Amino acid sequence: MKFSNVVPIPVLKRMPSYLAFVKTLQKQGERYVSSTRIAEYMDIDPTQVTKDLAYTTITGKTRVGYEIDSFINILEDFLGFNQIDSAYLIGAGSLGRALLQDEGISAYGLFIEAAFDIDETKIGTKVNGITIHNVNRFRELAEASNIRIGIITVPAEDVQNVANFMVDCGIKAIWNFTPARIKVPGNIVVQNTAIYTNLAILFNKLYHMNNN
Amino acid sequence: MKFSNVVPIPVLKRMPSYLAFVKTLQKQGERYVSSTRIAEYMDIDPTQVTKDLAYTTITGKTRVGYEIDSFINILEDFLGFNQIDSAYLIGAGSLGRALLQDEGISAYGLFIEAAFDIDETKIGTKVNGITIHNVNRFRELAEASNIRIGIITVPAEDVQNVANFMVDCGIKAIWNFTPARIKVPGNIVVQNTAIYTNLAILFNKLYHMNNN
Repeated sequence: MKFSNVVPIPVLKRMPSYLAFVKTLQKQGERYVSSTRIAEYMDIDPTQVTKDLAYTTITGKTRVGYEIDSFINILEDFLGFNQIDSAYLIGAGSLGRALLQDEGISAYGLFIEAAFDIDETKIGTKVNGITIHNVNRFRELAEASNIRIGIITVPAEDVQNVANFMVDCGIKAIWNFTPARIKVPGNIVVQNTAIYTNLAILFNKLYHMNNN
Repeated sequence: MKFSNVVPIPVLKRMPSYLAFVKTLQKQGERYVSSTRIAEYMDIDPTQVTKDLAYTTITGKTRVGYEIDSFINILEDFLGFNQIDSAYLIGAGSLGRALLQDEGISAYGLFIEAAFDIDETKIGTKVNGITIHNVNRFRELAEASNIRIGIITVPAEDVQNVANFMVDCGIKAIWNFTPARIKVPGNIVVQNTAIYTNLAILFNKLYHMNNN
């Protein structure tokens, strides 16, 4: 089991940055890091760092701080990045194929085992070694492999139908890469990651900052 | 100019979902949409929708609501998705190449004009028609093309150096795809989009929900 408690989302959002910082220190040959130093890096209060890390089993020593190797191991375990889960992806369009081609995702504990589409010209082809199947094989394959995580990269107008289908096929967690919102039963997890909608925020800051 | 005012980030995060919903209705042949209907889709209060839309010039009519075609045009303009900005990307590794291959990004107003790397085997090659240059050509090309937006997809430990370099070359907004935090002068915009760190949130919800 990756987690014993629900951790607040703001904490889970900060932790990968702690991890990135401490891994950088490790590469630089350092052995210990203090909560103060992590806090300075994050531009937050040191008590926030210690409170966040109290969700984990990471413990520091007075004066020397946290031992870096064990900090990294525990935090990676805690975030679920060390244990690989399998996922199926529906929608092998431009964004879907980009995700299939990115090997970085497995460093965060997810392996995309197969992809699905309705486009006959894509079915049977492979992207980065991952086969694109006809979506009508999703149920059979997902049940056989006990897949619990589904990734959605279809056009926004099809997202709700695809989500309904995934849930019906036994998927327990949906990672939605579109800006569309989906409605699912209460026992299903949804994580929305509409990458490009972040551009609206970037554009707004950029145009405001440079025109006033 | 894309924006005349700074819009709160939660508003900017909701608006692309409004847009996705209303575009779906447009495809279904509908002509009007009410704030109540958008609110139901979003699972938020209708007054929140009207407050958010008050940042734009979108106006509704009593009883019929918002006219869909004009809603879409105004909102796309407002979010900066209709006017294409150019960006340079540093780090043509797995994630960087995935971004170069995704054509969806231009639908949100960003065109990646060139990519840069230090790996000799990549320099001079093209991904999706976009040339990968030696990073030592970044300044010259960015200044000539007046590039203001830089995308960072390098390993986390190199992000701060790359950000410093971009700022020194005149970049005004940095889109950071790594979990590393960067420090920049106050007049530089940073948008963090660490895609895979969302997995920590998804894993936490999934494992909690299914083990209790």
